[in-house]
Amino acid sequence: MAANIVSRSLKRVRKLLADGAAKHRLDGRELIKVRNLLHECASGAGGEVSTRRRAARLAETYQDLDDDGRAGFLRLIATEFGPDPERVEQAHAAYQASIGEAAQWEAESNLRQALRSSRLRILTQFTALPQGVKFLVDLRADLLRFLARDPALPSLDRELESRLSAWFDVGFLELQRITWDSPAVLLERLIEYEAVHEIRSWSDLKNRLDSDRRCYAFFHPRMPLEPLIFVEVALTDRLADNVQTLLDENAPVFDTEQASTAIFYSISNTQTGLRGVSFGNFLLKRVVDDLKRDYPRLVHFATLSPLPSFRRWAEKTPEAWGCAFSTNDLQKIARLLPDGSGPLTAADQLPQLLADGQWIEQPRLARALEHGLLRLAARYLLTASRNGRPYDPVARFHLGNGARVERLNHLADTSARGREQSYGLMVNYLYDPDTIELNVEAFSTSGDIAAAAAIRRSIRD
Amino acid sequence: MAANIVSRSLKRVRKLLADGAAKHRLDGRELIKVRNLLHECASGAGGEVSTRRRAARLAETYQDLDDDGRAGFLRLIATEFGPDPERVEQAHAAYQASIGEAAQWEAESNLRQALRSSRLRILTQFTALPQGVKFLVDLRADLLRFLARDPALPSLDRELESRLSAWFDVGFLELQRITWDSPAVLLERLIEYEAVHEIRSWSDLKNRLDSDRRCYAFFHPRMPLEPLIFVEVALTDRLADNVQTLLDENAPVFDTEQASTAIFYSISNTQTGLRGVSFGNFLLKRVVDDLKRDYPRLVHFATLSPLPSFRRWAEKTPEAWGCAFSTNDLQKIARLLPDGSGPLTAADQLPQLLADGQWIEQPRLARALEHGLLRLAARYLLTASRNGRPYDPVARFHLGNGARVERLNHLADTSARGREQSYGLMVNYLYDPDTIELNVEAFSTSGDIAAAAAIRRSIRD
Amino acid sequence: MAANIVSRSLKRVRKLLADGAAKHRLDGRELIKVRNLLHECASGAGGEVSTRRRAARLAETYQDLDDDGRAGFLRLIATEFGPDPERVEQAHAAYQASIGEAAQWEAESNLRQALRSSRLRILTQFTALPQGVKFLVDLRADLLRFLARDPALPSLDRELESRLSAWFDVGFLELQRITWDSPAVLLERLIEYEAVHEIRSWSDLKNRLDSDRRCYAFFHPRMPLEPLIFVEVALTDRLADNVQTLLDENAPVFDTEQASTAIFYSISNTQTGLRGVSFGNFLLKRVVDDLKRDYPRLVHFATLSPLPSFRRWAEKTPEAWGCAFSTNDLQKIARLLPDGSGPLTAADQLPQLLADGQWIEQPRLARALEHGLLRLAARYLLTASRNGRPYDPVARFHLGNGARVERLNHLADTSARGREQSYGLMVNYLYDPDTIELNVEAFSTSGDIAAAAAIRRSIRD
Amino acid sequence: MAANIVSRSLKRVRKLLADGAAKHRLDGRELIKVRNLLHECASGAGGEVSTRRRAARLAETYQDLDDDGRAGFLRLIATEFGPDPERVEQAHAAYQASIGEAAQWEAESNLRQALRSSRLRILTQFTALPQGVKFLVDLRADLLRFLARDPALPSLDRELESRLSAWFDVGFLELQRITWDSPAVLLERLIEYEAVHEIRSWSDLKNRLDSDRRCYAFFHPRMPLEPLIFVEVALTDRLADNVQTLLDENAPVFDTEQASTAIFYSISNTQTGLRGVSFGNFLLKRVVDDLKRDYPRLVHFATLSPLPSFRRWAEKTPEAWGCAFSTNDLQKIARLLPDGSGPLTAADQLPQLLADGQWIEQPRLARALEHGLLRLAARYLLTASRNGRPYDPVARFHLGNGARVERLNHLADTSARGREQSYGLMVNYLYDPDTIELNVEAFSTSGDIAAAAAIRRSIRD
Repeated sequence: MAANIVSRSLKRVRKLLADGAAKHRLDGRELIKVRNLLHECASGAGGEVSTRRRAARLAETYQDLDDDGRAGFLRLIATEFGPDPERVEQAHAAYQASIGEAAQWEAESNLRQALRSSRLRILTQFTALPQGVKFLVDLRADLLRFLARDPALPSLDRELESRLSAWFDVGFLELQRITWDSPAVLLERLIEYEAVHEIRSWSDLKNRLDSDRRCYAFFHPRMPLEPLIFVEVALTDRLADNVQTLLDENAPVFDTEQASTAIFYSISNTQTGLRGVSFGNFLLKRVVDDLKRDYPRLVHFATLSPLPSFRRWAEKTPEAWGCAFSTNDLQKIARLLPDGSGPLTAADQLPQLLADGQWIEQPRLARALEHGLLRLAARYLLTASRNGRPYDPVARFHLGNGARVERLNHLADTSARGREQSYGLMVNYLYDPDTIELNVEAFSTSGDIAAAAAIRRSIRD
Repeated sequence: MAANIVSRSLKRVRKLLADGAAKHRLDGRELIKVRNLLHECASGAGGEVSTRRRAARLAETYQDLDDDGRAGFLRLIATEFGPDPERVEQAHAAYQASIGEAAQWEAESNLRQALRSSRLRILTQFTALPQGVKFLVDLRADLLRFLARDPALPSLDRELESRLSAWFDVGFLELQRITWDSPAVLLERLIEYEAVHEIRSWSDLKNRLDSDRRCYAFFHPRMPLEPLIFVEVALTDRLADNVQTLLDENAPVFDTEQASTAIFYSISNTQTGLRGVSFGNFLLKRVVDDLKRDYPRLVHFATLSPLPSFRRWAEKTPEAWGCAFSTNDLQKIARLLPDGSGPLTAADQLPQLLADGQWIEQPRLARALEHGLLRLAARYLLTASRNGRPYDPVARFHLGNGARVERLNHLADTSARGREQSYGLMVNYLYDPDTIELNVEAFSTSGDIAAAAAIRRSIRD
Repeated sequence: MAANIVSRSLKRVRKLLADGAAKHRLDGRELIKVRNLLHECASGAGGEVSTRRRAARLAETYQDLDDDGRAGFLRLIATEFGPDPERVEQAHAAYQASIGEAAQWEAESNLRQALRSSRLRILTQFTALPQGVKFLVDLRADLLRFLARDPALPSLDRELESRLSAWFDVGFLELQRITWDSPAVLLERLIEYEAVHEIRSWSDLKNRLDSDRRCYAFFHPRMPLEPLIFVEVALTDRLADNVQTLLDENAPVFDTEQASTAIFYSISNTQTGLRGVSFGNFLLKRVVDDLKRDYPRLVHFATLSPLPSFRRWAEKTPEAWGCAFSTNDLQKIARLLPDGSGPLTAADQLPQLLADGQWIEQPRLARALEHGLLRLAARYLLTASRNGRPYDPVARFHLGNGARVERLNHLADTSARGREQSYGLMVNYLYDPDTIELNVEAFSTSGDIAAAAAIRRSIRD
Repeated sequence: MAANIVSRSLKRVRKLLADGAAKHRLDGRELIKVRNLLHECASGAGGEVSTRRRAARLAETYQDLDDDGRAGFLRLIATEFGPDPERVEQAHAAYQASIGEAAQWEAESNLRQALRSSRLRILTQFTALPQGVKFLVDLRADLLRFLARDPALPSLDRELESRLSAWFDVGFLELQRITWDSPAVLLERLIEYEAVHEIRSWSDLKNRLDSDRRCYAFFHPRMPLEPLIFVEVALTDRLADNVQTLLDENAPVFDTEQASTAIFYSISNTQTGLRGVSFGNFLLKRVVDDLKRDYPRLVHFATLSPLPSFRRWAEKTPEAWGCAFSTNDLQKIARLLPDGSGPLTAADQLPQLLADGQWIEQPRLARALEHGLLRLAARYLLTASRNGRPYDPVARFHLGNGARVERLNHLADTSARGREQSYGLMVNYLYDPDTIELNVEAFSTSGDIAAAAAIRRSIRD
């Protein structure tokens, strides 16, 4: 049976990859073979069995190639299967001539048809393979890595992204709860994919799925057991202000009947190949609905989020330190510095002093820094921007979804990464069901950032 | 919750429809409202809740309209949300100027972008609704009915068909067996959708799902319990030659351990709105695989199919009767005719004689007609064509899938419809796993029709 | 494979039964064969394959027998596989001798062991067959029919009932909702099993599963798709007083968001072979829990129940009519009687007058009878008893479950059966969560019947 | 809702246990409370809610007790809820008087009824609790630990075992395959329960579920995700002779299309509380059926099993060494011994020499021992017995299931446990579908042990 051949060969392929087998180059002879195969695929001749066999051969060939080979393979698709410029020209002329007449609509349709390439026809044949959709998502991940190499690839990427966006329409995604009863293969992937706070072991994971936690993910019907995006939630009775406490395996389990607050403490996109296809907004919305149904007493929905680019921005923006740290602050800090650390006369000397992260071990020094760092971070979140949008990528995500900046927390992530990215600070974004839509609207039309009064005040002083 | 509002309002809509509630006209005032709503949808402003609310209002508005109103609604989408011709012109100029240079690919992509309309953005918002995909499929069914009315609609239809084709990619469909254990709501739909041989009652249906029968359907993950296409199969030990026998509820159950032959006796497409999106080829392939796994002794896979346009063609093609009926045949027939039926001097008088279907009740007359009718039907299947493809729609389907014309059967469907469509004849198309791919290839490239030697011979004499 | 042989042979058996195939007698020769087979089963020799083969042969043999043969077969089991009286005697002597000493417990255990028969070992072998549990339940239904024939059978029946009670422990049952999405084979069984208000067609059934209805059943894991007991519920806003109205397919669907009251209008036990194994109590309890979760506004849970033995009792209890109908009542009635119906001088003449059920068609006569009939029924429910328990079987069930007699309804079931059983009357039993446990206790310890004050008053006057 | 109270309280109970909370003693006051509660349970008064509440309180009380308290609790049930000796005496007299008459059967039934105790009624109330069945199985595990303490307990144990046997009838068990797709909570339990070859980590487990492995377990519908017994299978092309090789995580995956042999290398019973309830026989039978369906080329089904009591027996049976080791063997061995290990003049000195397991590190010494050890083990398996059954518990299991002793393997389990239990030897038991039933029969009736000719020969020489 062809189906068997295919699935076996795809398995072999995965095996090769897993084994780190030496990849092939796309040399002259191979190139001719691949080109022929691609043209066959584009022609779409034959029945289902032929299609599957071809798709399987193409997939195997692709998988066997090294990076240069793959880039070459994709370039072939990008450059040799585009539309015919002459046909486009004629269709365009007819279109422009028809504007305002009844024929306009058909002419438009014909022009669109003339522009249709065979590229997608080649790529979408993979859906006939078991796990073919995942294969295509992974191929796009390759493509994204190669974009800068070759001006022909971005165009192919846009076509593929457009198709993936159609397939991964949020209407087609399924929200599922993930628990300790979920398949091990799925939980293993959470461990692998968690991007925000690394899952260190199966027992760490089990703790994150305990009775006072919730984990949700979106799945696509054709990629079962493969989460697309997932969120980890803690049920508690206050706005969490420290992630190490949240993740402590020895902490007592919270009695969820007392829970007033759901903390989204980790949100991870898992498929690089789906960049540009967004579904975070919907995920949070549905998670809130599900939580509310199970715990009618929940009233607050908030995140405990990192500020991944805070330090990078702060080090590039010395003037901001001056606004954030008062003279009084500086004096207090100076007094606590070890003798050898030199004089502290101006706020813009602080970045250097804080560079090695040692200060976090000194409670009194850390306390002296608190006020200034919080004000600095408030300024960062409310004013720092890039291309007209918030500088911080996590802020972009949550503000775009209608959240507001609720509270900044000092010494909230004291891990090495926490110090390095954000001087140990974390932020709570609050999702207030009553204002979400207003915030989305205000943010998208005029870039207004919603924030708690205290935060807003702290940068005005 | 918005979700509730939406699903309730959609329910109301279905209720109204079911109740045959009076539909609204799209008068001037309503038109303005709809136009505004569409523009809001196209803008995509706001978050998920806004999107859903808007989609629900749009769906409700649409459902409330009468046919003229709906056609007007769709025309609005087709004509006011197209691309901007000036922007297209500029992008096209840049594209043509870049041909052969590195910039060509981006220019192509920009041109495609310039052509992208907001129409799909409006239509795909419905996927956010529960049952939104089904709503869109039904909307396309409307659109297909309106195509001839308005030159603007075919263009919209092509865009929508293209998106539906992406969504209903066979890779995304699920094959399921349907049995008497299936949900009643699904079985009720089979009764409603069966297009070939009407299902007269629940007990007729139960008989078609008995142990010597199989029924398979394709489903889409977002339209559960809604079959897209289904096939009914009888397991037996010979090439079935009569459909009334197959459907006889009182016939004994065949012992499937003795089965050598699977007869596909009914294949129904159920969703008008998916016209142009084909999956029949894949369905049969997978059904054959599944049957083989369960019954390793099965060797023959064939249909028992109607010839829906045979009589229409035959009545328009009097010369064909002359080739099919020998003088000898005619004499035999003439002798059996009642006195008042006039002289029978030439074959082209036969259509009129057979017109009222009474002949089928006279066994000797029916026998005298057999030879000629079979030759006439063979000629029809092997030579009659329209637009370069077989005249018969069922033949187009099976030949395109790689089957061959295996046998013609006289008195095979003696129902009123059988007589009317095809003088009671039916045909077996044979799916021979060894030649399917060859047949698909030969048929698609050169239009060759595969047929058993006996059939082929019968038109050569 | 043995498994195949078995399942095929069991299928053959069911087929024979369904076909009404002539059954065999258990003649001398056959008797010897069966006896040998039973002794082999009792010995339990061999491995799993032997066990299954034997069980399958035994099942087939049993199924092939006519009623006399089956009774003989069961008698064989009852009489030849009992305990050994001598061994029992010795064990008993040892037991009595040990009372009060440490050895007592082992002696008791030994006596119990000596009493253990091989009967159950034979019968429980059927569980190895697919559908073997259902086979055993059906065998018990036979056994119950034969009880009166043979003094040896009741003893076997008690052993089997005891084992079935262990297997069908309510802790092992699963509550499932039945909807129009349920498997057709299951719905077909509802149609067949409904014992209270006949389901006339698939569309009648569909109406009973509409959005303002609920249907629940208990299932056993080893008898899937085979409901053990089921209840039909209507959601509405008042205490229903007429069953024809409830079952009217053309009645508008009630908006469940307004529902304050759940009416259990039909409860059917389906498996005769499980007589003595009770689960109704648990069913209603869990159904109430499930309804409350889905419709938090529901406050009343009540039945609309028949009084199946009311008329039988009333015709045997002429003196009760005298209490129920006042002289005034009798005069009113007398005036409305047709001339030929004779004089009406005393209430005990009424039964005869009402015998043919014609009165129900005469609105004025029916109205004149109302007051008396309601008082008569109240007396029946609150005072009529048999063996110290309520005379009415449905009353026994609901009062034992903690319900109270809430209201009697005149002209509530005007079907032929309704007139015949209960002069058209029906009763609402109310399940008030606050008093259920008290009622259960009071009823089981002192036979107290809970009833609404109005009912109670109506028999005091 | 009572249901919530119950499930919460049971959770609390589990929590307490897990937390190693201090257990209570069953002092005088508590004793009175428990006794009252037990009597209430035995009376069965009240409705479902009362029953549940009582069962929950009883379960909580029991869980809170320390071991002495629990033993006392169980003693209460055993001694105070037995039958009434006087009633038994009367029923027995009536029974004996009726022998041979029609009344015998009812009299037997009455005697059985008189012997029925309230003990089971108390214990089976737990089934009303979520996870109540598991609770009861665990309670029996306690009971088994306490048996020797109190002569009253074995009697209670036999009643409970009898009920558990009815509930865990193999007809009620479900065979399920366990894979890496199975719920993590279930896999975690495998890690915990594996009794033969410890699972060291999640990656060790994943290796045992790889594509060339299979794992199956039996489940009870009321103890989901809780395996009762499970078997681990390796697919390979030869009779495996070394368990370390089998469990090596770095070994290449075997291509199952080449597999001729299925090796059952670990079978674990998981529930101590189900001792005496057997299902191993059925498990292997069904696993073989399932494997055959998936891999039609599989022809051999064998185990790689430990000989857990081999060394214990060998050390107690010095004369057997004399038969097993020839003079020639002894001379070879003597020559390889280190100087200080003393002279080796007779075989019965060997046990001491092998005691510390060092010999296994010396390849030449190990080789010299091979012949004798294999003969010694053959003698052990084929002749050593206890209570008329094989001495080795694993042999008892497999021989009872119809397997034959196929091959003994030297240096097959070189782990510390392997050396300690069986001088590193392991054995293959072969399940030959053609002879299983014969073997079962011969073993159960006359104790015949099936063995390969070579094994048999090796003890005859």
